[in-house]
Amino acid sequence: MSQTLPPPLTYAMIGGGTGAFIGEVHRKAIALDHSATLVAGAFSSTPERSIESARQLGLPHDRSYTTYQELVKQEASRPDRVDFVVIVTPNDSHHPIAKAALEAGFHVVLDKPATQTSEQAQELIELSKEHNRLCCVTYNYTGYPMVRQARALIEANHIGPIRKVFVEYHQGWLASDLESTGQKQASWRVDPHRAGIGGAIGDIGTHAENLASFVTGLQPQSIYADLRSFVPNRPLDDDASVFINYTSGAHAVLTASQICIGRGNGLTLRIHGESGSISWNQETPDTLEVTKLNTNPVTYSRGGPDLHDDATISTRIPQGHPEGYLEAFANIYKGATDAIREHNSDQDPSRLAQLIPTIDDGYQGVRFVECCVQSSRSRAAVNF
Amino acid sequence: MSQTLPPPLTYAMIGGGTGAFIGEVHRKAIALDHSATLVAGAFSSTPERSIESARQLGLPHDRSYTTYQELVKQEASRPDRVDFVVIVTPNDSHHPIAKAALEAGFHVVLDKPATQTSEQAQELIELSKEHNRLCCVTYNYTGYPMVRQARALIEANHIGPIRKVFVEYHQGWLASDLESTGQKQASWRVDPHRAGIGGAIGDIGTHAENLASFVTGLQPQSIYADLRSFVPNRPLDDDASVFINYTSGAHAVLTASQICIGRGNGLTLRIHGESGSISWNQETPDTLEVTKLNTNPVTYSRGGPDLHDDATISTRIPQGHPEGYLEAFANIYKGATDAIREHNSDQDPSRLAQLIPTIDDGYQGVRFVECCVQSSRSRAAVNF
Amino acid sequence: MSQTLPPPLTYAMIGGGTGAFIGEVHRKAIALDHSATLVAGAFSSTPERSIESARQLGLPHDRSYTTYQELVKQEASRPDRVDFVVIVTPNDSHHPIAKAALEAGFHVVLDKPATQTSEQAQELIELSKEHNRLCCVTYNYTGYPMVRQARALIEANHIGPIRKVFVEYHQGWLASDLESTGQKQASWRVDPHRAGIGGAIGDIGTHAENLASFVTGLQPQSIYADLRSFVPNRPLDDDASVFINYTSGAHAVLTASQICIGRGNGLTLRIHGESGSISWNQETPDTLEVTKLNTNPVTYSRGGPDLHDDATISTRIPQGHPEGYLEAFANIYKGATDAIREHNSDQDPSRLAQLIPTIDDGYQGVRFVECCVQSSRSRAAVNF
Amino acid sequence: MSQTLPPPLTYAMIGGGTGAFIGEVHRKAIALDHSATLVAGAFSSTPERSIESARQLGLPHDRSYTTYQELVKQEASRPDRVDFVVIVTPNDSHHPIAKAALEAGFHVVLDKPATQTSEQAQELIELSKEHNRLCCVTYNYTGYPMVRQARALIEANHIGPIRKVFVEYHQGWLASDLESTGQKQASWRVDPHRAGIGGAIGDIGTHAENLASFVTGLQPQSIYADLRSFVPNRPLDDDASVFINYTSGAHAVLTASQICIGRGNGLTLRIHGESGSISWNQETPDTLEVTKLNTNPVTYSRGGPDLHDDATISTRIPQGHPEGYLEAFANIYKGATDAIREHNSDQDPSRLAQLIPTIDDGYQGVRFVECCVQSSRSRAAVNF
Repeated sequence: MSQTLPPPLTYAMIGGGTGAFIGEVHRKAIALDHSATLVAGAFSSTPERSIESARQLGLPHDRSYTTYQELVKQEASRPDRVDFVVIVTPNDSHHPIAKAALEAGFHVVLDKPATQTSEQAQELIELSKEHNRLCCVTYNYTGYPMVRQARALIEANHIGPIRKVFVEYHQGWLASDLESTGQKQASWRVDPHRAGIGGAIGDIGTHAENLASFVTGLQPQSIYADLRSFVPNRPLDDDASVFINYTSGAHAVLTASQICIGRGNGLTLRIHGESGSISWNQETPDTLEVTKLNTNPVTYSRGGPDLHDDATISTRIPQGHPEGYLEAFANIYKGATDAIREHNSDQDPSRLAQLIPTIDDGYQGVRFVECCVQSSRSRAAVNF
Repeated sequence: MSQTLPPPLTYAMIGGGTGAFIGEVHRKAIALDHSATLVAGAFSSTPERSIESARQLGLPHDRSYTTYQELVKQEASRPDRVDFVVIVTPNDSHHPIAKAALEAGFHVVLDKPATQTSEQAQELIELSKEHNRLCCVTYNYTGYPMVRQARALIEANHIGPIRKVFVEYHQGWLASDLESTGQKQASWRVDPHRAGIGGAIGDIGTHAENLASFVTGLQPQSIYADLRSFVPNRPLDDDASVFINYTSGAHAVLTASQICIGRGNGLTLRIHGESGSISWNQETPDTLEVTKLNTNPVTYSRGGPDLHDDATISTRIPQGHPEGYLEAFANIYKGATDAIREHNSDQDPSRLAQLIPTIDDGYQGVRFVECCVQSSRSRAAVNF
Repeated sequence: MSQTLPPPLTYAMIGGGTGAFIGEVHRKAIALDHSATLVAGAFSSTPERSIESARQLGLPHDRSYTTYQELVKQEASRPDRVDFVVIVTPNDSHHPIAKAALEAGFHVVLDKPATQTSEQAQELIELSKEHNRLCCVTYNYTGYPMVRQARALIEANHIGPIRKVFVEYHQGWLASDLESTGQKQASWRVDPHRAGIGGAIGDIGTHAENLASFVTGLQPQSIYADLRSFVPNRPLDDDASVFINYTSGAHAVLTASQICIGRGNGLTLRIHGESGSISWNQETPDTLEVTKLNTNPVTYSRGGPDLHDDATISTRIPQGHPEGYLEAFANIYKGATDAIREHNSDQDPSRLAQLIPTIDDGYQGVRFVECCVQSSRSRAAVNF
Repeated sequence: MSQTLPPPLTYAMIGGGTGAFIGEVHRKAIALDHSATLVAGAFSSTPERSIESARQLGLPHDRSYTTYQELVKQEASRPDRVDFVVIVTPNDSHHPIAKAALEAGFHVVLDKPATQTSEQAQELIELSKEHNRLCCVTYNYTGYPMVRQARALIEANHIGPIRKVFVEYHQGWLASDLESTGQKQASWRVDPHRAGIGGAIGDIGTHAENLASFVTGLQPQSIYADLRSFVPNRPLDDDASVFINYTSGAHAVLTASQICIGRGNGLTLRIHGESGSISWNQETPDTLEVTKLNTNPVTYSRGGPDLHDDATISTRIPQGHPEGYLEAFANIYKGATDAIREHNSDQDPSRLAQLIPTIDDGYQGVRFVECCVQSSRSRAAVNF
């Protein structure tokens, strides 16, 4: 908590203006640890709203942009150009903006899902390499300390080779036809033009897939999916049920649904190995239940005994003082800003930097959605 | 609690001798409410063990039988013949014993799964009709008061038409190769000759399917299943993942697994309708969480306010005084003995009697296992 | 589960007729394990109701008594006299009935609180010794397997010398003036003539005190209590807050209240020692949380790993198959009937028999109520 | 989330340098919502450490002070003087520093407990009025949205007049002699010179008292307390058990203990009224259980349905996305900076500003500790 703090980096935000949920989350996550300072932005596709948002956020006039193109061009030419660009627009514009930013030599932090097609994600992987810039994708649930503890336990073979994974992400907020009421968060998520081919599977299913992959290290081999749309006239799925065969022989059941009345943000992960099991629930993120064969369950706590360093460096306050969603999100940004700083000075990445999700994860997430959609349409398993 | 108690019925037990788990469960469930008195038995295929078990249970010598054939024959000819026969042998002998008992004019209570094939179950349905005898199958989890409350709420359209069902039955006790150690409960369950074609899917998956059917009233239309055997050299599945399409358009994800270290008897049911949802967990059976759209979750309790009569008549002691597995099992027997008594006296069945699972449910359970096995082998959906 | 069962004992019940809650609980608890057979009774102070109850329970006419005096006298003279007498009348008649039964040479099982005054309890202790008869008091919560596990852990010094105990028993059913509605359970409990000097403190506070004493083995030295009656015109306390100084230097906070809306039967026990702690909750009785200094909490389960024999012999069915209140109550009766059988044949008591609460515990419970009432009236600590 | 943000205020911090837990908490809480900017500080009584801390936090050299006197004097004379001063030193220096800051015309935010004696707190109340400056005391647990929801429900008479309060604050971190190991957080808390007359009762008991007062609005009339020190040679209490009589006739049991192995930060509040009850647990702060007489419990959630505006304005992210300790702390600072801004511009205080704890609450907390110590020493009740 008290090590010498490096001077904060600077960043620009694209998207995330007035009324946007996720832009404010990113800004708070960055502010919490003073990871970086917002100095420029193009917050909306409507110029007036973009300028107004910039004003509210205290940005100087000359760094309040009305288009991302202008932002990238102007910032690239400034001597005090921003260290990185945060992209929090709807999914359809992720690819062109990230491409422009990378080509202009900016590091990029991209909200998930990374892009609309896996080809686009692949292109970003290549641009990232070509321009030697980092491209982080904010699969923020991997930032929870106890998720990192789970990963470390599995890496240390604490529960043996994995057999079965149950991962579910259940929400209830789209159980009714919210999009017809004009609710902004609902509208773009169920619109194929902005969200892409996946509804619930893209919005939250990819989080579930990413979480399982991050913790287990398993690689999907084939996918069988059943996507449904329960709310009448909704063009994208609001309920997804997926079997995943991993290359190791392990098997997963992944369910992602937004019609589950009574569920807030019910992301849970249960992993069963040959010699033990691990359970975690995002709504009570500070604990982790671990059971070894023929022993009683043990509850690990953030800030408590017997934690791996990956969990310890991802925590701020003592056991029993709850941390939550913003703190986990902030861990992604601590890692990303560490990574950028170290990259800029040719240092090896810190452990926090190593843990961040990148465009490689982003690619896998988009590919996962594509496989699910294809499987569900063809009623057959699809190779990953 | 204090109504006039009818004189208890009498029963014979086949199977369930020394060392058998489930036979003792049936006896305790019957004793708890004085539903019937054990007066005869053929407890084991080994004559000495059968006689010894009868002696320990205090049975008279002349009603301690060494084979089921003898029991059926002798009891049928006694003036004080038993009112019903309880069959708790391994699965492979359910059909011949039940057939013999029905043909001899006995009412039958049969442990689940009813039979090894759906043809056998169909035959029992017909014999039951032909001989005008009751045939109850002990899908005991439907005896829990809060399961009956869930059913009543759904019947009353409390949560609207059902969209999605998640039902899971996770145990950990077969995570290792227990059958090689000679453990009796494990050995027959993984032996196709005694258990039939289903491992976990037959042992516990059928309970999950029955529970979902009982509570929702939905009818399966097609099944897609992935059955696996994770413990090396185990001939039957120990892990099953199933999608169920119901005729109504609803969808279920059913998972049944016996390799889930850390799980004791983890049977949970979550049902999501258009206007609400219901959750229940067998390990905390006295409560039920119900959420209506745009309202906060309400927790119903056994013995608490606002219960349907089906829950109230299935309970014995006040709220907060836990009831458990044996009490739920006893509810099945209260219903079954009510049904037999009423049947014998040409009365309409009481509500408890109406709620019991019968050989029709038994048929559906066996058919479910067959569909799952067929689907998993063919890697394609199978019509129910 | 399958050892040779001894022939069941016989018993008579005094009190517990039609409409009585606790009498039926005792009968079911005895029936569950076939511990004994009810063969005689005097169920009500109203002769007609007594006879009617006997008829409903299937008792022969000649053992259906209308007064306890008659029962004791007649049974004492029969060659097949009952092995023991169960007394489940309201508190005010416990002492004379138990006295008569002991003097006539019967073993006695007495509902709690044992008597109305500690002098009466002391007299029963002496009568029990003088006539060499057992006198068990049904502090039934000590029958839970995980309570016995907690006791065994503490006896084995698993958590070090005890410092602090928090025990609470919170119910909500007397939060309103239920007695004015004629509700039978409420009426006698708030009537000093029948309940004695303690309201909530006598009805449930003694259970809490007994539970803490049973598990910890600590001996009260002094008591400071604050008893209140929140419902207008209620003559006895409905809310009690107590500090207990133990002779060892440990300290307890005991709260017993019946005005806690939202609580069913909220009996919880938390014990903190120098090197660990233990928590248990009666509403989820099958688990026990144990934490050692500087380690993570471990959850023990009934039927699970690492249990003391005292827990194992008190359980019937596997982990995850819930047992509850009646099963715990039945453990008291298994122990009591073991104790009677062994006493009758001059055998050493089995472990189950050793664990049962006796009139010594009954004395302590009554003394505890007296101390609480005296302390609350005098607003000063009272020596135990 | 997206209203026009006012320009952030500026603040100086006194105490809270390298290695201090609570200073960093205050800084993060302020940063999360951009409530204010840290521009000056005197972080340690050791000049070198103070300067080093300032450097690490990026402060300019001319506002990096080595004593609080210097900070107050220099800042008071600057045209860009800070808007407020945050005091996070050990308890013994709170009073002189706050006094100096108020006298120099600064608004003050003071960590709890406010002072070492109630006379000192009274003096700060008067100084605050005399100099017309705000003095906020960070009883941070009142910042939780669901705590504010509980308060609003009670204010709206949702559970009727209050009868009984159970509030407990149990931690385990001082169960062993941590102070002898040189652990800094432990050392000053058990040292009467720095902590004052209260150990656990001052450190956490005051939080419990404040939480109960904030939510219920009840006023203590008399106190009976039993303070103990279980760890050998510890000069201050590490375990406190308190009865509180409120002027309304309500009663509370408050326990605060730091020897409860297995507890992290176990602050729970349960309130029972004539027609309902409310329960809250700091370790799962996003939910609130509310039960009305003769109905089933309802679980309110942060971000969920049916919330009072006080809860809604205290939340940032949707239901199911956990908020925690830092977010609640940040709510205090949002309110405090609102209050300062509005005070400075003669505006009426916003609702957030009205909800903050002030030096009046600070006074009550110190008075509470004094009463507890006096009662425990005299073994008698003490008037508040």
